[in-house]
Amino acid sequence: MKLVPLGDKVVLKQLVAEETTKSGIVLPGQAKEKPQQAEVVAVGPGGMVDGKEVTMQVKVGDKVIYSKYAGTEVKLDEEEFIVVKQNDIVAIVAD
Amino acid sequence: MKLVPLGDKVVLKQLVAEETTKSGIVLPGQAKEKPQQAEVVAVGPGGMVDGKEVTMQVKVGDKVIYSKYAGTEVKLDEEEFIVVKQNDIVAIVAD
Amino acid sequence: MKLVPLGDKVVLKQLVAEETTKSGIVLPGQAKEKPQQAEVVAVGPGGMVDGKEVTMQVKVGDKVIYSKYAGTEVKLDEEEFIVVKQNDIVAIVAD
Amino acid sequence: MKLVPLGDKVVLKQLVAEETTKSGIVLPGQAKEKPQQAEVVAVGPGGMVDGKEVTMQVKVGDKVIYSKYAGTEVKLDEEEFIVVKQNDIVAIVAD
Amino acid sequence: MKLVPLGDKVVLKQLVAEETTKSGIVLPGQAKEKPQQAEVVAVGPGGMVDGKEVTMQVKVGDKVIYSKYAGTEVKLDEEEFIVVKQNDIVAIVAD
Amino acid sequence: MKLVPLGDKVVLKQLVAEETTKSGIVLPGQAKEKPQQAEVVAVGPGGMVDGKEVTMQVKVGDKVIYSKYAGTEVKLDEEEFIVVKQNDIVAIVAD
Amino acid sequence: MKLVPLGDKVVLKQLVAEETTKSGIVLPGQAKEKPQQAEVVAVGPGGMVDGKEVTMQVKVGDKVIYSKYAGTEVKLDEEEFIVVKQNDIVAIVAD
Repeated sequence: MKLVPLGDKVVLKQLVAEETTKSGIVLPGQAKEKPQQAEVVAVGPGGMVDGKEVTMQVKVGDKVIYSKYAGTEVKLDEEEFIVVKQNDIVAIVAD
Repeated sequence: MKLVPLGDKVVLKQLVAEETTKSGIVLPGQAKEKPQQAEVVAVGPGGMVDGKEVTMQVKVGDKVIYSKYAGTEVKLDEEEFIVVKQNDIVAIVAD
Repeated sequence: MKLVPLGDKVVLKQLVAEETTKSGIVLPGQAKEKPQQAEVVAVGPGGMVDGKEVTMQVKVGDKVIYSKYAGTEVKLDEEEFIVVKQNDIVAIVAD
Repeated sequence: MKLVPLGDKVVLKQLVAEETTKSGIVLPGQAKEKPQQAEVVAVGPGGMVDGKEVTMQVKVGDKVIYSKYAGTEVKLDEEEFIVVKQNDIVAIVAD
Repeated sequence: MKLVPLGDKVVLKQLVAEETTKSGIVLPGQAKEKPQQAEVVAVGPGGMVDGKEVTMQVKVGDKVIYSKYAGTEVKLDEEEFIVVKQNDIVAIVAD
Repeated sequence: MKLVPLGDKVVLKQLVAEETTKSGIVLPGQAKEKPQQAEVVAVGPGGMVDGKEVTMQVKVGDKVIYSKYAGTEVKLDEEEFIVVKQNDIVAIVAD
Repeated sequence: MKLVPLGDKVVLKQLVAEETTKSGIVLPGQAKEKPQQAEVVAVGPGGMVDGKEVTMQVKVGDKVIYSKYAGTEVKLDEEEFIVVKQNDIVAIVAD
């Protein structure tokens, strides 16, 4: 099963924050701060949304930062996703 | 009796969350989390809605995810439905 | 006396919820849940409303479902009506 | 002195609710429920209001129902009026 | 010094409510109710305001009724004025 | 250092309220009421702002009245400024 | 890693407020007032945003003042950034 977003919606998978100890061991995120980084899992077709033409600017695989409090949390097959409007994505994280 | 939605409205029937025990027995959902998955039961004609042209993108039988808190709950012949605007449907669940 | 709605307004008469006892006797609604079903009693002419062209899609006699909390309650000659904007009607109940 | 409403504004005079006793005597309204019926006393010219063309649809003498909480209460020469936007008038009461 | 309003703004001077005693003596207003009558002291040029063309319909000297809670109170040379948008003026008081 | 406002923004410097004692001595403002008079220090270029064409109508040196609660307070080199949208300026104070 | 803002978004790095003691020693900011000055780190491409054409007016390296409460705080590689819409930048600080 997969999520096919409508309009300007984008399906995100939150990235787990990782921490590296001084010895170099990577510990999966126990950070209390909810990380706002996520990976784009699916992108809507854009087009006419709420009377406005929207061109999609993110693509699957992009690492993005999205607005706190934005989006709809979805649980599918025990996995959690966040579906946001592209407008709630503020930046792409590039290498 | 059936519901015929107006404009960009979509009639949904919430899907019952199912849980499978380790022995393989399927138990109907006792989940406290209200599942946001629903099946599309009827689709409005779209067209001019609130001054904006809306094209309907979901069809009867689609399994969809809709925004929490969205929509009007309706009870008809002992069955419960949710009527939402298409814009409150964030994604279609595809196989 | 009757109500002639303006613009995109629709005059509704709430339908009394009925309950059938096992013996087949119909009891008028004592339901605590306010039924959202109503019958269309009068329909505004539509046209330019708040800068947007509105075409009326319901007609007198339609049984409809309307949004909770929407509308203006009106008492006229001891009868109670609800006047809503057509946009607050989410679906027509068809047989 | 009289009130000349601007734009899409309409001056209303609230109708006193009357009650007829069984003996046929008419008692002026002691109703606690504020009646929403009012008579149109003056009508603005309509035209361009807030960037939208408004055509006036009520006329002096019309008995109308207006939205609760709408309008500006005005006292002029010991008489009380309510000035509402035409859009806050939901229906005309016709005989 | 005087106030020159911008755009669709109108400078008002609140009229002091007067009370006439039975003996015919006029007492300056001790009314607790803040009167909403005011005299137009200066009128903005209108034109393009917030993307919408506004034509000014009041003129200096007009006695007007304005919306409660509207406007910016201004004190200039010990005199108090209220600056409102023309849209907050609901009616002109004519003789 | 100086502030160069963007779009329809205007940089203001609040004018200190002065009080003249009966002996004619001018005391710098100890007024508790925050004066809303300010001098225009810098004016944005106007143009397309939030999808609407804005023409700037104030100029550097103008004494203006601005809406209470409007604007962003800025401290630069120990001086305090308020940056407002031109629309929050209600009137120019002319001699 | 770096942040690539979308649409009309701008990535800012808050400037640390500095204080000079009387002896001339510069102390890094212990100011309780959160400084609103920031340096532009990255600028979105502008273009069609929410149905409106936006031209970017700030550039990387600009020192700017932005609206309090605006923007999304982002932590990337232990550095903190604020991503705001260009409209939340009220002025550029020029020398």
